[in-house]
Amino acid sequence: MTLPSTTSEPLAAACAAALDAVHRQAPLVQCLTNHVVSGFTANMLLALGAAPAMVDIPAEAGAFAPVASGVLINLGTLGGRQPEAMREAAAAAHSAGTPWVLDPVAVGALPVRTPLAAELLGQRPTLIRGNASEIAAVAGADTAGRGVDATIDVDAVSGAAGELAGRLGAVVAVSGPVDLITDGATVVRVANGHSLLTRVTGAGCALGAVMAAFAAVTDDPLTAAVAASCAYGVAAEDAASGAAGPGSFAVALLDAVATLTPDRLADRARLEVVR
Amino acid sequence: MTLPSTTSEPLAAACAAALDAVHRQAPLVQCLTNHVVSGFTANMLLALGAAPAMVDIPAEAGAFAPVASGVLINLGTLGGRQPEAMREAAAAAHSAGTPWVLDPVAVGALPVRTPLAAELLGQRPTLIRGNASEIAAVAGADTAGRGVDATIDVDAVSGAAGELAGRLGAVVAVSGPVDLITDGATVVRVANGHSLLTRVTGAGCALGAVMAAFAAVTDDPLTAAVAASCAYGVAAEDAASGAAGPGSFAVALLDAVATLTPDRLADRARLEVVR
Amino acid sequence: MTLPSTTSEPLAAACAAALDAVHRQAPLVQCLTNHVVSGFTANMLLALGAAPAMVDIPAEAGAFAPVASGVLINLGTLGGRQPEAMREAAAAAHSAGTPWVLDPVAVGALPVRTPLAAELLGQRPTLIRGNASEIAAVAGADTAGRGVDATIDVDAVSGAAGELAGRLGAVVAVSGPVDLITDGATVVRVANGHSLLTRVTGAGCALGAVMAAFAAVTDDPLTAAVAASCAYGVAAEDAASGAAGPGSFAVALLDAVATLTPDRLADRARLEVVR
Repeated sequence: MTLPSTTSEPLAAACAAALDAVHRQAPLVQCLTNHVVSGFTANMLLALGAAPAMVDIPAEAGAFAPVASGVLINLGTLGGRQPEAMREAAAAAHSAGTPWVLDPVAVGALPVRTPLAAELLGQRPTLIRGNASEIAAVAGADTAGRGVDATIDVDAVSGAAGELAGRLGAVVAVSGPVDLITDGATVVRVANGHSLLTRVTGAGCALGAVMAAFAAVTDDPLTAAVAASCAYGVAAEDAASGAAGPGSFAVALLDAVATLTPDRLADRARLEVVR
Repeated sequence: MTLPSTTSEPLAAACAAALDAVHRQAPLVQCLTNHVVSGFTANMLLALGAAPAMVDIPAEAGAFAPVASGVLINLGTLGGRQPEAMREAAAAAHSAGTPWVLDPVAVGALPVRTPLAAELLGQRPTLIRGNASEIAAVAGADTAGRGVDATIDVDAVSGAAGELAGRLGAVVAVSGPVDLITDGATVVRVANGHSLLTRVTGAGCALGAVMAAFAAVTDDPLTAAVAASCAYGVAAEDAASGAAGPGSFAVALLDAVATLTPDRLADRARLEVVR
Repeated sequence: MTLPSTTSEPLAAACAAALDAVHRQAPLVQCLTNHVVSGFTANMLLALGAAPAMVDIPAEAGAFAPVASGVLINLGTLGGRQPEAMREAAAAAHSAGTPWVLDPVAVGALPVRTPLAAELLGQRPTLIRGNASEIAAVAGADTAGRGVDATIDVDAVSGAAGELAGRLGAVVAVSGPVDLITDGATVVRVANGHSLLTRVTGAGCALGAVMAAFAAVTDDPLTAAVAASCAYGVAAEDAASGAAGPGSFAVALLDAVATLTPDRLADRARLEVVR
């Protein structure tokens, strides 16, 4: 991959400014997410300098979303009445203008989450984050996922992601070895990251929450998604350098996110912008 | 803050004796808590030398509470039929004389947990633990919380906490930079702790479980709450000394709780007693 | 305990081959487990080189089990409609021939999980894993458990475990200081492990998932259970050597599982085989 730094420098600076805004504003991020990753997700938001609020039950979820700075809806495990709470939160976020992120975990063939994801698109998510298989499924492309694993390549869904983004007026972020982020017009590739992220449960899910935090402090969702992805990737690179395996890597990732500065983010960003 | 050591030495010794009793008795602490922090809470109890039992469903929760040494009820996420299980457990604990702790997470404006907290007060919690906003809300004081964040000062709720404690015959513990603990007559301030506790999700929630463990081994709930708060704070100071951020701090906190001795607790306690 | 290495060498070699097969095949392990340990369990599977899929709601659980390589059903917390999802998953796994593991957490006196465990036995689990109290309860022996703690000795249930295994055509694994694993004909004792495993919540629960991963890649469930127990125990010994307490031990355990090689497993296995 060629990284034309002349093109990407303004975006790297915008990412740094967004991180600074997160630090200053400490956005309150409401998470309706799965029980597997809820603790790690909340810790990631706290490490970032944001404030998590895991308000995810009916009657409370809709009441809270207008107060929140950003909302994450992650379909990983839909226990109890969580789907109802998600409908409430998405509708309330949409009405109130609270930016919200949809993470369509393992959407495709599974019969509860797949129609729920389709329904929630009607509430106009600000951002949609997933792996290539999940984004393909949301976009209605013909693919088969294997649970939460991406079985297809990021670049293979570039067209579907752009079409989905354009149709919904949303930003679509496809996670992979190189993340692909698009609003339907511009495509950004973020080359930061580390393969150990695939060995930590909830690494992708927590990135969705980080995107909601960034979306809360910037008016441009494309910048928010790129800044989140890039900050996360730089922190992962730092964390991996001293890790003895996935356990110590996950711990170090929280430390690295907590100590990442805007300047360091700008220096280390590896972005490619295609308009 | 002045720390009149002449006054607080007997209390520090009582805290050390309570920690020794936890180590010897390994109290069985039943937790009905939120899915975000349940793993960390169970690990904290194990680190302390207590035994966690996360029995939190209807039919089982009420049956288990009389067998448990102590019970924690934390309102963080009230998924499925957890409220019903909490009603059962609180009633059974009250009837059986099992000490129990109420943690009214984010109570105030939210429409499910707020009336549930009020209802559960009827089962006479032994201890109520929360931040200043939550305690103010439970006490019926006029304040506005922002999710789980305290937006008001510990000392600002000193009066409300004392009134609540006296009215219910409970001990009320207000967490903050300096914890304030009162039974309505005596007020104790615990100055141990570290700001990194605010960067770990469930640090406060796990403290509620630790309080239930201490309440299980001592007849004096005020001493139990102070011992728990002080032990937790000393361990946090130890953990922070070698931590590179909130991730490594959370890991080190478990290690520090596991290795804390009664003597060290007595030496390091920073208590102020006001009668 | 005498360790007759002449008898156990072929089994140690089979364990090493099974670990190699896990690494090569990356089995997809569906987990229906409790909210306390779901994150740690998924991380353990990822560390091992397997792929977790926490699909645990009705309509989806049954649809997924035929696609999964192995299934874990753990009765720790039965929130929402999880029992219904477990019935689906067990039936679908049985029909499809997907190997599945039952972990009857705290079964005995508790009124929801105890009859559910009995009912699920009808779907013929490939493996049953628990502590001595839990295995005794499942076998119908007369004992009293204290929540998740084993209050009776592994060897005390050797007869009941063998009888249960023979009756169901299953392998029964009893966790303790020395694990006892039997198919009703052969009894294997695994002496690897470390006492810090009892200070980490979900250490036993995650072992159940690891057993499902091994059962997915070998036709012999006895070898699968022994390989899982032995790999876990060797990793625990490695992790304990550098740990400062239960917090750092849990992190190091994930690292040690991720870096364990088949050769090291064969070298370090401490097995006793009694036919």
